[in-house]
Amino acid sequence: MRPPLWIAAWALLLHGCAAGRAPSPRNDIRNCTADPPYLPPTATNTTARLAALRGLLRTRGAHAYIVPPRTRNGTAVVTEDKAALWTDSRYWTQAERELDCNWELQRTTSIESIGMWILEAVPAGGNVTLDPFLFSIDTWNSYSRALHGSGRTLLPLETNLVDQAWGDQRPPPSSSEIYSLPAEFTGSSWQEKVAGIRQQMEQHLRRPTAVLLSGLEETAWLFNLRGDDIPYNPVFYSYALLTNTTISLFLDESRLSLAARRSLLLGCPGPLCVELQQYGQVSAHLRRYAQGNVTVWLGTEYTTYGLYSIIPQEKLLEENYSPVMTTKAVKNAHEQEMLRAAHVRDAVAVIQYLLWLEKTVLQGQVDEFSGAQHIDALRWAQEHSHGPSFQSISASGLNAALAHYSPSNGSSRSLSVGEMYLFDTGGQYLDGTTDITRTVHWSEPTPLQKEAYTRVLMGNIDLSRLVFPSHTAGRTVESFARRALWDVGLNYGHGTGHGIGNFLSVHEWPVGFQSNNVPLEAGMFTSIEPGYYRDGEFGIRIEDVALVVEAQTEHESEETFLTFEVVSLVPYDRKLIDLSLLSPEQIRYLNSYYERIRELVGPELRRQRLEEEYAWLQASTEPFPLSSAHTLAPGALALAPLLSVLLSGLGA
Amino acid sequence: MRPPLWIAAWALLLHGCAAGRAPSPRNDIRNCTADPPYLPPTATNTTARLAALRGLLRTRGAHAYIVPPRTRNGTAVVTEDKAALWTDSRYWTQAERELDCNWELQRTTSIESIGMWILEAVPAGGNVTLDPFLFSIDTWNSYSRALHGSGRTLLPLETNLVDQAWGDQRPPPSSSEIYSLPAEFTGSSWQEKVAGIRQQMEQHLRRPTAVLLSGLEETAWLFNLRGDDIPYNPVFYSYALLTNTTISLFLDESRLSLAARRSLLLGCPGPLCVELQQYGQVSAHLRRYAQGNVTVWLGTEYTTYGLYSIIPQEKLLEENYSPVMTTKAVKNAHEQEMLRAAHVRDAVAVIQYLLWLEKTVLQGQVDEFSGAQHIDALRWAQEHSHGPSFQSISASGLNAALAHYSPSNGSSRSLSVGEMYLFDTGGQYLDGTTDITRTVHWSEPTPLQKEAYTRVLMGNIDLSRLVFPSHTAGRTVESFARRALWDVGLNYGHGTGHGIGNFLSVHEWPVGFQSNNVPLEAGMFTSIEPGYYRDGEFGIRIEDVALVVEAQTEHESEETFLTFEVVSLVPYDRKLIDLSLLSPEQIRYLNSYYERIRELVGPELRRQRLEEEYAWLQASTEPFPLSSAHTLAPGALALAPLLSVLLSGLGA
Repeated sequence: MRPPLWIAAWALLLHGCAAGRAPSPRNDIRNCTADPPYLPPTATNTTARLAALRGLLRTRGAHAYIVPPRTRNGTAVVTEDKAALWTDSRYWTQAERELDCNWELQRTTSIESIGMWILEAVPAGGNVTLDPFLFSIDTWNSYSRALHGSGRTLLPLETNLVDQAWGDQRPPPSSSEIYSLPAEFTGSSWQEKVAGIRQQMEQHLRRPTAVLLSGLEETAWLFNLRGDDIPYNPVFYSYALLTNTTISLFLDESRLSLAARRSLLLGCPGPLCVELQQYGQVSAHLRRYAQGNVTVWLGTEYTTYGLYSIIPQEKLLEENYSPVMTTKAVKNAHEQEMLRAAHVRDAVAVIQYLLWLEKTVLQGQVDEFSGAQHIDALRWAQEHSHGPSFQSISASGLNAALAHYSPSNGSSRSLSVGEMYLFDTGGQYLDGTTDITRTVHWSEPTPLQKEAYTRVLMGNIDLSRLVFPSHTAGRTVESFARRALWDVGLNYGHGTGHGIGNFLSVHEWPVGFQSNNVPLEAGMFTSIEPGYYRDGEFGIRIEDVALVVEAQTEHESEETFLTFEVVSLVPYDRKLIDLSLLSPEQIRYLNSYYERIRELVGPELRRQRLEEEYAWLQASTEPFPLSSAHTLAPGALALAPLLSVLLSGLGA
Repeated sequence: MRPPLWIAAWALLLHGCAAGRAPSPRNDIRNCTADPPYLPPTATNTTARLAALRGLLRTRGAHAYIVPPRTRNGTAVVTEDKAALWTDSRYWTQAERELDCNWELQRTTSIESIGMWILEAVPAGGNVTLDPFLFSIDTWNSYSRALHGSGRTLLPLETNLVDQAWGDQRPPPSSSEIYSLPAEFTGSSWQEKVAGIRQQMEQHLRRPTAVLLSGLEETAWLFNLRGDDIPYNPVFYSYALLTNTTISLFLDESRLSLAARRSLLLGCPGPLCVELQQYGQVSAHLRRYAQGNVTVWLGTEYTTYGLYSIIPQEKLLEENYSPVMTTKAVKNAHEQEMLRAAHVRDAVAVIQYLLWLEKTVLQGQVDEFSGAQHIDALRWAQEHSHGPSFQSISASGLNAALAHYSPSNGSSRSLSVGEMYLFDTGGQYLDGTTDITRTVHWSEPTPLQKEAYTRVLMGNIDLSRLVFPSHTAGRTVESFARRALWDVGLNYGHGTGHGIGNFLSVHEWPVGFQSNNVPLEAGMFTSIEPGYYRDGEFGIRIEDVALVVEAQTEHESEETFLTFEVVSLVPYDRKLIDLSLLSPEQIRYLNSYYERIRELVGPELRRQRLEEEYAWLQASTEPFPLSSAHTLAPGALALAPLLSVLLSGLGA
């Protein structure tokens, strides 16, 4: 699951003015209707910062300012007298703990709802503003539609007011090295990738002359470069304009390693020569380029409205995602092998952690924070590790109901045998990025915990073993991960999965199960992560990463059928599984998954001389029994009547 | 399933110039690569008509003309030297039988594909034209996007070229009566409906001053009026503009019955007075109205681009569907009762037909056409009947692989005990519209037929018994109807269901399982109709109509959960069900459905003194046995080992 990078939406407003955070053992949330209002110690006083922002708004004649979500979760709007935050159910409790009473919490993320709120909060004739370089084209258009004909005007404000309100407390830009990936860790050379994209340009009916890359993963992937500008994400600030004859890369050139620089300039002069330009030059360069007889191909899902509006309409080729994004989404054979291998080593770290927890939690020495530190350390010890792929989520008991809760030192709950524990963690390795969630219990779960866990697992299994036609949209099959919960009136309020990269983002677009994801194709990787959250009590999530592969079906068909190969290789908690709820097919699937874990992770554990972990793995992957009802094929000999005849014979 | 009204797309071009159709026992399709090309007798020579259309194109400086689908299936495009038809898999074989070699068949319906074809077929600088009064706003926008920036211009042509090419062979407009529904057959009075819509206008943040109704079902439903301008659909050509103070209804006033006229004028003068205006006046009236300080609410999915473009952008409130469409979609208690009752009588007719087939097919006297005539007659005999709700689909053997095949007199295949038979039929009753498909076999199905039928049934059951949260979008759950087929590499190429009206359209928007349908709510009716088609061999479809109802779930939840109550009440063919494929839950569901059929249809059969049909129903709804494997609860006594102990004891 995605780490809370999105905190941009309110962290940009809250950061730097947080009150000292006392340990908060309670699920302590604000109560703004109390007299006086009650604020938990985790809340942030935003009065001064909001006043500064409103001052800036007034000087610009603006009546509302929209602050973007960084990762599609959580948008804030500040008007002259109101402030509101929109976020999905994963963050509701967290928001109630961190917001002060200046803020309304809106329990939805739909732009339609934001638009309606703005219509109520901003009088007709008002100006609604945002930074066009922080909003995608699609998002801009959605706001534009929401305000259309209402008398409110949507205006781009090219200075970022939050940055201004932040002032000199703003952190300096990164100055660390931007480096080339060694060839063994790339799917193909950057020259081959560029040639492939140019081929797609030639084959496109609209004959685009250029592709504009504004996603940080796009330039990192295309040029086989990495950096560390964003925590946990090995990317660097950059843009690129790839034309049919030239390549312009916009970045802080001084940060390039010698090898990286050499690699980029190897083909100079010529069509495979990368012209290095300063990051800030991209707008001017694009403006000049767009004066020619050109067609620029870009992805409207993430290209900023600011860049987009530089290019005249008739020179645009707009698709949801650029060809770099869609090509990157389908991993080639080597990329697949690398991601599989990274997951084997990652499983070793997670298994070490599970065994360590079994041994230490009982002694009462582990809390959420030290647990997270421990698993991070275990990952760092694995080969090719570059540390965690997001801030580790380590949540005990009721804290796990906050789906994105991350502990901090000093306010962290002790792990205990009496509570369920959820950890959602991942690693960056040179060969691949991982993301896995397990939920465990070290003594006796309640019946509801066991039922809910089993149904979450059933959802994970049902989606993982689904056979479906090639090019099926993820959103049309994600309900298979929910049905076992729905059956008894349970559900979860977040998405079911997201793509993942090769030493890139742990949340890689455009693959996944949401409405704006692309159809599933063989070679894509996605997480599968149903959950169940009971506010104030416990939280469950079971997350695996799976590769989309071709399925062998009983009947031949003109259509290609696909299914998933789960590449996360860590067994589930047997104590939490109610076998009687599982169908024979689900049990068979589970047993064959466990067999594969043994085959793939067992040898790696032995190679690393982790004999105790090896024994733990063997015990944890024992095949589950198919009950008598399950082993009898339907229609097989009916034993009950026969038995009664035999028994009556014996009695006679 | 929808009747082939959509033939508009090519029928408008083909109709009137069809060659004499000889009986065609073979699955006889065109072969345009043969030398000379082979055309089946069912093909139509379109050379002259295309030449006429191209002449009209040239005089208007147009390079392509897009001919619309009437019901979202099948679009044709004619250019100076090409003609192509886009349609979904249901119609591929039919198209290959009816098109001549002037036509390319494109096996998709995506506008993107049509757009790409146009880009290849029409040179840059060319004009692509269509009649804006035949295309919805959304469709217009899709074409506009597809051609955007390509140098081709999308132009509205307000005269319909196909009508012109048709000339005086065009049928005259209807002159039959437009009448009021008796109060017992309406959900509420038209005045109550108008008040409800006006309330929604007041409560909408944008405060629309008017709603524009351009769907024929909208005016029919709102004013409780019916007509017969469209075969099988009791609607009449009309528009309405409902403002907060006035009501304008545009239609051929002279056709109104006295009672209908009286009902509409009852509230005159006043806000519930209907001003009657001539049909052709709508554009002029709308243009005048739009000059004021107004906001017009309309549905972009179906309002024509022609009307839409009359209203200035800033005076539009655009949503996918008007409030009349969305209100009509949720049936109130009385409407639900009426639809249930219509389905009970409809089941009687279908059961009579099934029994009649069992008795007469063996004698070799029934063919597809006479079968269709017979079931139509049986429906007509039921109370409140207004005949079939679409042209009956009656297809034997390989003809059933053409999902929308309708037989014609003289070219109709005999029904035989050696083949499967599919009939997809429905009735119009004053209280409700019905639509049901059953597939039967009167002797020994092949193993594949039996497996495919069972898997189609499993899909029907799995979707029908699904429990899901309120406001779930149909498209996110329709895969449950496909999974049993996908599992073994089978699938079907059409949608899974559509809404249905109270004595209105058999295919009523906006309910259903497609991407442009609205989320499911309690009170909606939809068909559930998975199928499987084996080209040249056989076709299977099992279609029921179901009401969305609240579900009782084991755990309480803040969310409302929904499920379906199937209101079609006709048993499936037992001979075609392979019980060993069904899960215990599926068998239990089937048995409780059959119990409900007995409860609801049994008494009606007796009331109609259909004793033989009653006996047939009892036999056909016998509960299915849960095999021994199914009756044993998982975890119950393991009999096999016990048995072996007993047996070895006996042997000793």
